[in-house]
Amino acid sequence: MSEDSALFDKGLPIRREVLGADYVDASMAKADDFMMSFQRATTAIAWGWAWGDPTLDRKTRSLINLAMLTALNRAPEIKLHVKGALNNGVTVEEIKATLLHATAYCGIPAGLDAFKAAHEVLVKEGALK
Amino acid sequence: MSEDSALFDKGLPIRREVLGADYVDASMAKADDFMMSFQRATTAIAWGWAWGDPTLDRKTRSLINLAMLTALNRAPEIKLHVKGALNNGVTVEEIKATLLHATAYCGIPAGLDAFKAAHEVLVKEGALK
Amino acid sequence: MSEDSALFDKGLPIRREVLGADYVDASMAKADDFMMSFQRATTAIAWGWAWGDPTLDRKTRSLINLAMLTALNRAPEIKLHVKGALNNGVTVEEIKATLLHATAYCGIPAGLDAFKAAHEVLVKEGALK
Amino acid sequence: MSEDSALFDKGLPIRREVLGADYVDASMAKADDFMMSFQRATTAIAWGWAWGDPTLDRKTRSLINLAMLTALNRAPEIKLHVKGALNNGVTVEEIKATLLHATAYCGIPAGLDAFKAAHEVLVKEGALK
Amino acid sequence: MSEDSALFDKGLPIRREVLGADYVDASMAKADDFMMSFQRATTAIAWGWAWGDPTLDRKTRSLINLAMLTALNRAPEIKLHVKGALNNGVTVEEIKATLLHATAYCGIPAGLDAFKAAHEVLVKEGALK
Amino acid sequence: MSEDSALFDKGLPIRREVLGADYVDASMAKADDFMMSFQRATTAIAWGWAWGDPTLDRKTRSLINLAMLTALNRAPEIKLHVKGALNNGVTVEEIKATLLHATAYCGIPAGLDAFKAAHEVLVKEGALK
Repeated sequence: MSEDSALFDKGLPIRREVLGADYVDASMAKADDFMMSFQRATTAIAWGWAWGDPTLDRKTRSLINLAMLTALNRAPEIKLHVKGALNNGVTVEEIKATLLHATAYCGIPAGLDAFKAAHEVLVKEGALK
Repeated sequence: MSEDSALFDKGLPIRREVLGADYVDASMAKADDFMMSFQRATTAIAWGWAWGDPTLDRKTRSLINLAMLTALNRAPEIKLHVKGALNNGVTVEEIKATLLHATAYCGIPAGLDAFKAAHEVLVKEGALK
Repeated sequence: MSEDSALFDKGLPIRREVLGADYVDASMAKADDFMMSFQRATTAIAWGWAWGDPTLDRKTRSLINLAMLTALNRAPEIKLHVKGALNNGVTVEEIKATLLHATAYCGIPAGLDAFKAAHEVLVKEGALK
Repeated sequence: MSEDSALFDKGLPIRREVLGADYVDASMAKADDFMMSFQRATTAIAWGWAWGDPTLDRKTRSLINLAMLTALNRAPEIKLHVKGALNNGVTVEEIKATLLHATAYCGIPAGLDAFKAAHEVLVKEGALK
Repeated sequence: MSEDSALFDKGLPIRREVLGADYVDASMAKADDFMMSFQRATTAIAWGWAWGDPTLDRKTRSLINLAMLTALNRAPEIKLHVKGALNNGVTVEEIKATLLHATAYCGIPAGLDAFKAAHEVLVKEGALK
Repeated sequence: MSEDSALFDKGLPIRREVLGADYVDASMAKADDFMMSFQRATTAIAWGWAWGDPTLDRKTRSLINLAMLTALNRAPEIKLHVKGALNNGVTVEEIKATLLHATAYCGIPAGLDAFKAAHEVLVKEGALK
């Protein structure tokens, strides 16, 4: 789609900064035509349109996302955004507090899945002492 | 239940500050035994346990809640927490940016319901110019 | 549909006993062709097929439903099944314990909506002292 | 936001054709700055970006939406899209078959809410004999 | 359960045609008594009752399912129904358009999971050029 | 958090009895500070607060949980609670009846995921003849 190119162009550098240029470039490089249609969508809508609005800082958006993705039951996205949160300067204590907050509002099983997903990434990134 | 009283005692003043003492006191005063069991639950778990943790400031918790409640499809709670957000110093622009962010992640119909719920409260509170 | 008639015939008397013959007969009587297609579906699938299995007693199915409908965010069905629970001999204390249990697993906002819906019916039915 | 204007311009006439020009124009006219931000979002993303893709015809998109909104538990949007479905040439029998299909996949309570929402609009529009 | 046998008998050949006789026969053959109770349920309700209604053609039902399952967050069923969609004559372009449509309504993380699930099946089936 | 210790102390022995002391002790032993915050939450809220209320017996709570977790789309928790249900004296026939009941209310794909998760545990525990 050509009409979304302004949003795509705005979103791509933000997405690369938050999720990591290596990850994003690899996702784009390996995408065939089918997956590229989603790559365009997420880059334009989530990154160009939502993250591209400067009203909220990136750290706040990371915390919002971790809680919201816990509610949405989307563990693969939680993993991406734990890494993004670290890149945005969120501390492990803040991630933990956000997931505990989300547990109160989304219930214990939602909290369990979010903690396990986040923990896996934090260990891998060497973020836990 | 008596085992939750430390959390209840911790949560009640926070809840009154965020949602407004008038609203909270009226909810407690009119509660019969059936509803009081939930009043205790929300005060202890959401307010004593989640909000009572100082790792995140209240303004950030308000923004997290608005996005998370959009994901959870809970308009009555969104209304409560729009008022709470205003009490916590969140601006209308920040509420708007949070709901637009949530729309990208939760979809257009979730965004519609959240915007309508928030708008109703913002008008009532005289927060829109 | 004719293939579901054995299930429909099995489900109708169970549905009338649990939800009340007046309510069920009125729902069927006022249903036009469009709504009757759903009346057949719910009577055959929920009542003939699920409730019609004697492995679990009706009281247990009522408690299961209240928790499950809290998770599903379906307040209109919660109201129906609070009345059904009373008809099935569930006590107010058991309804309260079930909704508190569901609150732990589904989160505080789910609990709030379920408690409000249940309370409305319990007051109307004169079940609260 | 200016980057979404190509999608907005593409989406507005489609939205007006499907949901009705009167409804859409009134929604836009009464929108203050807060609500206009969502009006832009839905027009650009749902209508310019999703509906604006000619791969699927509008009738098929209407049926998809009715089932998907049943799954998402969004009755206000179901009402909008029942009217949109009629405008797109979907018959009452097709709406009924779609909601019964969705009931099998989303469960009986989801079906109940969708049938009630759809029925309300079909009666109002004089679409039921 | 014996009361569902007319629906089961109606559903089984449809299920075999859409999902593939090999897959369905293997699922039935390996099912013990516990799993057979679900095999009967899905065959009778989803296939005999929903798919067995000729009001909507199979291709349309496939598209409806892909969007609805994206909303329901059920990746294993998405995989089954991508294969079913191909069997029903849906093109890769139509699957892609349906999932993009669902992304607008269900949000970016729902779209990501659906695209990944669908892509895995499309590659395995050799459907992508 | 110290305010939840009365609930934690009440919940731990119940959790050990229902889920198995080996499993719970291992979860606690391997938990670092990050995961221990969730261990405290689930032990205090789910086990001390919800399960610790004697109004409903454990067998009933197990059945409630299986249906509610089917609705919540949380397969890892379903697995834990199938084992807990066996420990609480629930029969395989009762688990099957509960999941079929949940299938009617939550839809076919929810039923599929729940049956597969439950079946995996029942086979592993040698509970199927």
